[in-house]
Amino acid sequence: MGKYLRDHPVTPRTDEEKKSIVNRLKRIEGQVRGIQKMVEDDRYCIDILVQINAINAALNKVGLAVGERHMKHCVTHAVQSGEGNAAIEELIDVMKHFSK
Amino acid sequence: MGKYLRDHPVTPRTDEEKKSIVNRLKRIEGQVRGIQKMVEDDRYCIDILVQINAINAALNKVGLAVGERHMKHCVTHAVQSGEGNAAIEELIDVMKHFSK
Amino acid sequence: MGKYLRDHPVTPRTDEEKKSIVNRLKRIEGQVRGIQKMVEDDRYCIDILVQINAINAALNKVGLAVGERHMKHCVTHAVQSGEGNAAIEELIDVMKHFSK
Amino acid sequence: MGKYLRDHPVTPRTDEEKKSIVNRLKRIEGQVRGIQKMVEDDRYCIDILVQINAINAALNKVGLAVGERHMKHCVTHAVQSGEGNAAIEELIDVMKHFSK
Repeated sequence: MGKYLRDHPVTPRTDEEKKSIVNRLKRIEGQVRGIQKMVEDDRYCIDILVQINAINAALNKVGLAVGERHMKHCVTHAVQSGEGNAAIEELIDVMKHFSK
Repeated sequence: MGKYLRDHPVTPRTDEEKKSIVNRLKRIEGQVRGIQKMVEDDRYCIDILVQINAINAALNKVGLAVGERHMKHCVTHAVQSGEGNAAIEELIDVMKHFSK
Repeated sequence: MGKYLRDHPVTPRTDEEKKSIVNRLKRIEGQVRGIQKMVEDDRYCIDILVQINAINAALNKVGLAVGERHMKHCVTHAVQSGEGNAAIEELIDVMKHFSK
Repeated sequence: MGKYLRDHPVTPRTDEEKKSIVNRLKRIEGQVRGIQKMVEDDRYCIDILVQINAINAALNKVGLAVGERHMKHCVTHAVQSGEGNAAIEELIDVMKHFSK
């Protein structure tokens, strides 16, 4: 099923949507680089852990934004064409790993 | 207290320790860049979510490695010099945000 | 909106569905009581932490089962009657607290 | 090692410490029973998910309290008797499952 939905034409992301997500990911990329520097500079462990927490939180927000869009487009289309349950099961399956 | 421990001379990370953590962070940085490309290429949302899960798991592992070293050096030294409880409370405080 | 969906007639849970969820919750309730006894018997902290992890995992599974049913019924009905986005936003909102 | 520490005499929990943890667990037990009733009464899924989130958060707080005490007593004693690293590795190991 995953494959099926994956190949279906869904509403492509608008340029604005892409830019918004990519910008958030660029900021996260910069934070990850920042931690590398903290490690090299022998910075205090607790300060590094605080940064790791911040990145995890930022990544989770991106994940929720991607998930929300997925539900509003892909899952919604699937429901409308009678394939909702398969799309929902696919999403729940990925969330199982998320919440673990 | 945090400040106090932070300014204390702790065992500096060896070059090998730094390299091991930095390499893992470089890999994570590459994964974050990979997601940017997936978004720009309009890749399927579920595949993006799977990647985000993978990065979160990799970051958590780095966090645990940093935390383990922190306990084996900073917290251990603090315990030995009678300041253990303050160091432990500082660590628990950062874990509160981790587990939230 | 939440209120609106909340008052809408949704497919009521079957007796079998209720029984399956309630049985899992009864098991979790028993596990929570088990930890109380472990604390009273002065059992080793690590063994208690392992049990807390187990309960968290079991609760997350119940949450995903409830969420899956919610999507397959409430959200699906909302999509079919043109109110999908509101239902999806309500669900994402609760997941924000879940993943935190 | 785990076994070793487990059999060591550690500072037993005071009655007050036990009561504080057990009371929190009793409240959690009541919340789990509350969800059973919500399911039986066919309450709205989102309200059930909010309750599950609340229980998870409460359980995590108990876990952190148990972990803090563990570090302040068992791990501290282990450090003082030269067995700190084994105790720290045991704790990190249980946290690996926690943060997953």
